[in-house]
Amino acid sequence: MTRVALLSRSADLDFLRPLLLAQDASLDIATWPDPRCLQAEVAVCWQTPPGLYAQMPHLRLVHSIAAGVDNVVAGQDLRGLPVCRVVDPLLAQGMLQYVLWGVLHFHRHFDRALANQRRAHWQRHAQTPASGCRVGLMGLGELGGLVAQRLAAMGYAVGGWSRTPRSLAGVQTFSGAEGRQPFLARTDVLVCLLPLTDATRGILGAECFAALPAGAALVHCGRGEHLVPDDLLAALDSGHLRGAVLDVFETEPLPAEHALWRAPGVVVTPHMASMAGFDVVVRQIADNVARLRAGRPLQHQVDSTQGY
Amino acid sequence: MTRVALLSRSADLDFLRPLLLAQDASLDIATWPDPRCLQAEVAVCWQTPPGLYAQMPHLRLVHSIAAGVDNVVAGQDLRGLPVCRVVDPLLAQGMLQYVLWGVLHFHRHFDRALANQRRAHWQRHAQTPASGCRVGLMGLGELGGLVAQRLAAMGYAVGGWSRTPRSLAGVQTFSGAEGRQPFLARTDVLVCLLPLTDATRGILGAECFAALPAGAALVHCGRGEHLVPDDLLAALDSGHLRGAVLDVFETEPLPAEHALWRAPGVVVTPHMASMAGFDVVVRQIADNVARLRAGRPLQHQVDSTQGY
Ligand SMILES: NC(=O)c1ccc[n+]([C@@H]2O[C@H](COP(=O)([O-])OP(=O)(O)OC[C@H]3O[C@@H](n4cnc5c(N)ncnc54)[C@H](OP(=O)(O)O)[C@@H]3O)[C@@H](O)[C@H]2O)c1
Ligand SMILES: NC(=O)c1ccc[n+]([C@@H]2O[C@H](COP(=O)([O-])OP(=O)(O)OC[C@H]3O[C@@H](n4cnc5c(N)ncnc54)[C@H](OP(=O)(O)O)[C@@H]3O)[C@@H](O)[C@H]2O)c1
Repeated sequence: MTRVALLSRSADLDFLRPLLLAQDASLDIATWPDPRCLQAEVAVCWQTPPGLYAQMPHLRLVHSIAAGVDNVVAGQDLRGLPVCRVVDPLLAQGMLQYVLWGVLHFHRHFDRALANQRRAHWQRHAQTPASGCRVGLMGLGELGGLVAQRLAAMGYAVGGWSRTPRSLAGVQTFSGAEGRQPFLARTDVLVCLLPLTDATRGILGAECFAALPAGAALVHCGRGEHLVPDDLLAALDSGHLRGAVLDVFETEPLPAEHALWRAPGVVVTPHMASMAGFDVVVRQIADNVARLRAGRPLQHQVDSTQGY
Repeated sequence: MTRVALLSRSADLDFLRPLLLAQDASLDIATWPDPRCLQAEVAVCWQTPPGLYAQMPHLRLVHSIAAGVDNVVAGQDLRGLPVCRVVDPLLAQGMLQYVLWGVLHFHRHFDRALANQRRAHWQRHAQTPASGCRVGLMGLGELGGLVAQRLAAMGYAVGGWSRTPRSLAGVQTFSGAEGRQPFLARTDVLVCLLPLTDATRGILGAECFAALPAGAALVHCGRGEHLVPDDLLAALDSGHLRGAVLDVFETEPLPAEHALWRAPGVVVTPHMASMAGFDVVVRQIADNVARLRAGRPLQHQVDSTQGY
């Protein structure tokens, strides 16, 4: 028997209980704010309530139910606890679909067609082949790496930027601080698939936008805290940036009065780019619980010193 | 020396003259309404002025500058003249891109996100894998055939409908009058890539829409005359259809007062789905002129009895 706590300050994770029990009937599952959570050995989390792990003396594993772990580790005392994430081929497929819509939106002038439609204005723009559209992936991990390769296979001129050097077939790769400027300078459509860490917070700000060529566009599927909204609004206002497709926001739901809802050229979507299937989520958690019990290595463990 | 006429009632095709001469300096080229056109042996056409071929006694070949030949043969006396079209891999790539945006628009709920954005409304919809989205291609030719196979490779549940039976890897195919109803009944996103002929005029009308499941959507890249706009507006109004992405219209530019510009759920684009590269167009025309001279078989000749 392993004691599992379902922890979230924003969602009711109790729906995971029967799914987890179907994987492993021996689990003893409590859902926050049930105080039994504090006795758990495994925390299954999405936006963990602040400071909670410090009150869980028996905790041995923190498991995110998503790809990102930022909201699972932020403001917590991790004291060397292992943190795991979810890896799901369908999550990557969904992300590819979202990014593809966003890239095509700009590459094939759908943004202009939608703007023109509002005033019943018919205007054609020159068609460029995919090879003439330079897409740039910030983040070349499970998601960004797949998206980069699939876009390259579709003919796009794809570049990618990561923390450590990566090599990907058909992708022009850059890394680290010195790779950032040249990466941005060759990018017409910037796609953010970075994890949120201290090093990436606010990375989509004035400096980044200024480094992009005039007329560039943004597709943002990372985390809301990557983006400095006022800097984006200014870059759109000045005409330097052409538009943005935004899926994530510092406060979600995005408050109705937020300027991003109404900014010309901005598409706001409700954090919908991609979600792991819950069948995969519970299977990976149950598998990691079994590994923990047996003392075998965990799967999809993140590097807590890097925060992803 | 071959005498070539550039014929159009809507566009000035004279820009093709230097491109064609670069392929074959011996061509003698006139542009409509130059009366020398009437002496031509080869007509290079987009929306040919009505009845013109009847006044061209030396005419031996009619060449479209596009994939479709409908506006090149309509209202003309063809008297058995060969009619050729353009086949271009980049045309097919462009069409795939357009259709992909349209399919993703509905499959991944971007249509709902855009509608919600107008009132700053945040609402998530369930994510379905591509395999749960049934796309249906009307027309499985050069363009529809490629699009069908590429969507199937991306995981969509793809069906296709053609005049004669076709077999395509990963695509559930239907044909003829008896295949139409079952094809439509299994289609969530209907994509029209038919040529315009007497048999396909008005095919996107009330009967077709009623045969689609409730909540289906339309992506229309064929010709304006395929669509009965009032029937589409009624099907959208009743809620039976969810939305439409329309690239082609009976009158282009679509008149500013047309209801389609403003219909909820309709995206209007300015006949931009795909165009052949002019380098390919002039190469294929020059090649067919050389074949005509040498008495060799023409390339990409259409079946004039079928009209495509
Ligand atoms: N909107 C949505 O619906 C949604 C859904 C799922 C995920 N996401 C977001 O997508 C993010 C990425 O997911 P993933 O699974 O691809 O993550 P991952 O596998 O951890 O990959 C992260 C990538 O970002 C790079 N990176 C990290 N810090 C960096 C830095 N300081 N400078 C440059 N590059 C840096 C990494 O570089 P190295 O390769 O050198 O390590 C790696 O290539 C998640 O963290 C989450 O925020 C959003
Ligand atoms: N919007 C744009 O920018 C754009 C650009 C290019 C082309 N287009 C349009 O796309 C059309 C298709 O181009 P394509 O090159 O793929 O044409 P294609 O190679 O001639 O193929 C036509 C397809 O339609 C099928 N078809 C024809 N009549 C039919 C009927 N009565 N019932 C059922 N199926 C029928 C054919 O069936 P079989 O296989 O049995 O012959 C074939 O599969 C063009 O004619 C043009 O109108 C639009």
